[in-house]
Amino acid sequence: MNAECRVDAVEWQRWGQDCLRAQGFTEEDARCLADSLAQTSLWGIDSHGIARLPHYLNRVAHGSILARPAIRIDRTGPGTAQVHGGRGQGIVVAHRANALAMELALEAGIAAVGVSNSSHCGAIGLYSRAAAAQGLIGIAFTHSDSIAAPYAGHQPFFGTNPISLAFPRAGAEPLCLDMATTAIPWNRVMNARRDGVALPPGVALDAQGNDCTEADQVRALRPLGGDGYGYKGYGLAMMIELLCGPLNGNPFGPHISPMYDALERPRELGAFFIVIDPARFAGGAALAGVVAAMAMELAQAPGAPRMPGDPEAAAQAERRRQGIPVPSALWEDMAAWSVRLGVAPPARRL
Amino acid sequence: MNAECRVDAVEWQRWGQDCLRAQGFTEEDARCLADSLAQTSLWGIDSHGIARLPHYLNRVAHGSILARPAIRIDRTGPGTAQVHGGRGQGIVVAHRANALAMELALEAGIAAVGVSNSSHCGAIGLYSRAAAAQGLIGIAFTHSDSIAAPYAGHQPFFGTNPISLAFPRAGAEPLCLDMATTAIPWNRVMNARRDGVALPPGVALDAQGNDCTEADQVRALRPLGGDGYGYKGYGLAMMIELLCGPLNGNPFGPHISPMYDALERPRELGAFFIVIDPARFAGGAALAGVVAAMAMELAQAPGAPRMPGDPEAAAQAERRRQGIPVPSALWEDMAAWSVRLGVAPPARRL
Repeated sequence: MNAECRVDAVEWQRWGQDCLRAQGFTEEDARCLADSLAQTSLWGIDSHGIARLPHYLNRVAHGSILARPAIRIDRTGPGTAQVHGGRGQGIVVAHRANALAMELALEAGIAAVGVSNSSHCGAIGLYSRAAAAQGLIGIAFTHSDSIAAPYAGHQPFFGTNPISLAFPRAGAEPLCLDMATTAIPWNRVMNARRDGVALPPGVALDAQGNDCTEADQVRALRPLGGDGYGYKGYGLAMMIELLCGPLNGNPFGPHISPMYDALERPRELGAFFIVIDPARFAGGAALAGVVAAMAMELAQAPGAPRMPGDPEAAAQAERRRQGIPVPSALWEDMAAWSVRLGVAPPARRL
Repeated sequence: MNAECRVDAVEWQRWGQDCLRAQGFTEEDARCLADSLAQTSLWGIDSHGIARLPHYLNRVAHGSILARPAIRIDRTGPGTAQVHGGRGQGIVVAHRANALAMELALEAGIAAVGVSNSSHCGAIGLYSRAAAAQGLIGIAFTHSDSIAAPYAGHQPFFGTNPISLAFPRAGAEPLCLDMATTAIPWNRVMNARRDGVALPPGVALDAQGNDCTEADQVRALRPLGGDGYGYKGYGLAMMIELLCGPLNGNPFGPHISPMYDALERPRELGAFFIVIDPARFAGGAALAGVVAAMAMELAQAPGAPRMPGDPEAAAQAERRRQGIPVPSALWEDMAAWSVRLGVAPPARRL
């Protein structure tokens, strides 16, 4: 494991925003993106937090992400809209789409907003939580390039295609589930390679389609569900693919340009946001209170099961005190981008 | 394994409808329910098909399901409604709610209809498929009494809380995923008990919370996701519980009256239906064709992965030719109900 330093979220946010401004992002979009990445890292989701900014900056530099996209919105019904991302940065476009879904849900009771021609939109819990923070129910989906083997197959087809759902919870942070539809995240394979440890059986496949515990040999992730039930993760990934890809006119699975190759090629990624206004249903007014009561009941059961989102809240409390860990390789990337963009590097905690 | 006979779907449907008419169901509701159960058995989903009718008849006889419920509908927005089931049979109420969601989706672009004070609504693929058969995207959820251990816990809390999604597919039956959020269905435990075989590790727990492969000792199912990732099935079950239970003013998890106990006690179950009109999105017009193209591409990949719903289509083709298998215990139940309700028993295939 590499040495690491720690950077306060607020200082990191300042640095990210300065970099994006230097690349031509508007003040508002730069703040939106830097805030989102800092927040994701505060939740402990390192794979989708500040570590991703160098990649986004790189894509902007290669022209496949536009700092000033012409985002176009088509309202198509009382509860629906299509957001054309205009090759914008995915998190910026997705916040725009999700905010519109929240607005439409307050009018129509439920709303769905699809995104086309965008790019990687980060941790989708950002969007479901934003809805829940306003007392709404948020559901978010996105797709990515091929890494998951289909059930009964072994060649990567769909991405890790995640789903997130969030509900308001009285007196606490929203409840939030944010999960990939593969057996394990790709990040776990990368960490096993780095640390030289084996993967458990049943979660990954080698190039020949054999179950594979040796991280270096892994070529595909198995879908969520385990032996005999992998059709669940595979089926969920397919449905999420259809909602995010083809429904919005975007490519699907093997036709999506990979994240880290062909940096000059636009990714044409989509996302899909559903927001529901609880007040339109018989139990809506009491919902956040019932969620809190359910949490208490679970906490008193054997094993004291936690609520989805509780681990992120705990990480956030710790990282607000201690700062966000920055591995040395990321720190070097950040230093290089600071020089390249003429931005003061973030202060490290002593 | 018991001896079994076979009954043609059409003959079974006639018998089911006669029984329900004899219990006071309207012609329309009796047909709706008998059709749904015969269809579910044709798909090969024996746990939710014709085998369930004796239980429903029993609950009607005990007064917890009303043959003539006063179903009340509150329209609460351009895209939302609450259906109060009035203690009706769950499949009858759910078809009413789902049909309304389909109607509202054509107006608002997306719709959500919640169900309260209903009962067991059968295989939820019935509803998502009904939407997809009309060219819409259907999403259906329901909940049930406690059988799943929470992640990190071992006392049953949520039910097997399923989710179903269906999409139209050009030139073929709709694509349909219908899955429980537990590692295995309860039915698999029952079959293992009957056949005296062991369960695989990692899917069930005994009364002390230890992993349990001995079917007789199983007291809880583990959530979908496997070691370290059971928070996924647990989180999905919780979100589905909130949408179906508390959001509609229904009880949740441990507060739901069990299916096979207290037959005179109304179950107060809910369900939740979301329907989306693809035409409101940029790729909507081409969607069913892209689904068909995706199916072809997958069929040509190693292992020839199938589409969700293909196994059900294959079972239906076989059972249309050969009839639906009826185990002897079910046949005896059917004979007893025939006598009790003065209905001619279904003809068996020779």
